[in-house]
Amino acid sequence: MSSFSSAHRLTPGPVDLTAIDPADHPAYDGTKAEGELALAALGPDLAELQERLYANKASGRSVLLVLQGMDTSGKGGVLEHTVGLVSPAGVRVTSFKAPTEEEKQHDFLWRIEKALPSAGIIGVFDRSHYEDVLIAKVRAFADKAEIERRYEAITAFERRLADSGTTIVKCMLHISADEQKERLLARLEDPAKHWKFNPGDIDERELWPAYRAAYEIALERTHTEAAAWHVIPSDRKWYRNLAIGHLLLDALRGMDLEWPTADFDVEEQKRRLADEVPVR
Amino acid sequence: MSSFSSAHRLTPGPVDLTAIDPADHPAYDGTKAEGELALAALGPDLAELQERLYANKASGRSVLLVLQGMDTSGKGGVLEHTVGLVSPAGVRVTSFKAPTEEEKQHDFLWRIEKALPSAGIIGVFDRSHYEDVLIAKVRAFADKAEIERRYEAITAFERRLADSGTTIVKCMLHISADEQKERLLARLEDPAKHWKFNPGDIDERELWPAYRAAYEIALERTHTEAAAWHVIPSDRKWYRNLAIGHLLLDALRGMDLEWPTADFDVEEQKRRLADEVPVR
Repeated sequence: MSSFSSAHRLTPGPVDLTAIDPADHPAYDGTKAEGELALAALGPDLAELQERLYANKASGRSVLLVLQGMDTSGKGGVLEHTVGLVSPAGVRVTSFKAPTEEEKQHDFLWRIEKALPSAGIIGVFDRSHYEDVLIAKVRAFADKAEIERRYEAITAFERRLADSGTTIVKCMLHISADEQKERLLARLEDPAKHWKFNPGDIDERELWPAYRAAYEIALERTHTEAAAWHVIPSDRKWYRNLAIGHLLLDALRGMDLEWPTADFDVEEQKRRLADEVPVR
Repeated sequence: MSSFSSAHRLTPGPVDLTAIDPADHPAYDGTKAEGELALAALGPDLAELQERLYANKASGRSVLLVLQGMDTSGKGGVLEHTVGLVSPAGVRVTSFKAPTEEEKQHDFLWRIEKALPSAGIIGVFDRSHYEDVLIAKVRAFADKAEIERRYEAITAFERRLADSGTTIVKCMLHISADEQKERLLARLEDPAKHWKFNPGDIDERELWPAYRAAYEIALERTHTEAAAWHVIPSDRKWYRNLAIGHLLLDALRGMDLEWPTADFDVEEQKRRLADEVPVR
């Protein structure tokens, strides 16, 4: 486990997000430029380990990276800069929006189950089932008893995933309200970013303390041995990308996968190719 | 349309693959090192155009990149090096294997339909519905009349996709039998690549002329205005990656998409943010 993992992994018990500085950069003292190079330097290892995971799909193993955070916290940036370091052939990204009419006719985990990575794949959730205990709680889309039920359902669900071979990495992208304001203003300043902006985003800011409280409870209730939470200070984009790169690397390394050994006689196959009738 | 598109796009009529040198590098005279830099240089434009496509998903537009080719022709390499230049959030890769029992209970296009990119997304097929007129023909998994039906079904299907907003880019990765032999040997030499090798790959080589004939007929029968075929000389990996990068860039540029204009008053939203009660 890297120092990044130790620095960000929650300890069991109550969570106080106000005690974690979103502009901090634990376990890394380099500059932004150095941090960007350090991330790029993870690329070859990440790509090789992902391929090794893919090669081992008969083992049934997979990875699930869950990205949660407020608007503008940088889920898209992590996808582009960190997840983008591995081949898209080995990645399945799902961006969860408001549930469709069909999805609403099922339990909240129904659509999540369908989006799980198959063996050999790194699944990435851009938002996730946690919306169902975050926005659902803050906006009272579900009552208290139902939210309670969901914490339990989530921990049981994630335990099942872990037991069946999925390594789960849950990251909360922690930004400050001031940083969000800057990023929303930046979206308004750039016509190429207007499509990302929604006036409702400003209304949601009034609920910032309620979201923080909902996160704190959700993190506490669903932080388990099988599926630990990491809080990633995310006011610095480069640091956020680098930290999650390290967590992904730790997850893949921790699976301890070897290249599968040949189930055929390698020398015999070399001879067959050497001796073959010319093909053209 | 770039010179790469002109160089690789088939002309209507009979196809003679023996007349296309797999080691050629049309429209590009640089070295391997220069070609790799040239591909990397496409990255920012590809990434921006993909984001623009995503931003325009209300328009219903999408891209479908079809990669077909013999074993070792480099479909995985194109995914890693070319498709990997855009954010995985905007890409959906489907690798088609032998059909499952459930898939066999449906028309051959049933599983293809389910894998199509949604609006705003670049879908990539690593193998595709073309297997159903290639291996199916060579190995007689389907009779002559059924193969005939499939050519027609494919052109109608692809026309519907194009008419409903999908830009289709079909690439045949054209390698020589000698180059395949080298690549199979390289897989045998490297224990990290044994998992990619199957002794059956050597048996398939005996059918090389039959596969070539099947490709020639399939390319001719399914090369349409709505969904043109490109034959990419692929003995040089770097050239293959660069050429397909250019085709993808051409496809995205050809969609002529602008950033969506704001459906809100930008100045008003700036004022709202400036005037808001401090959030913390």
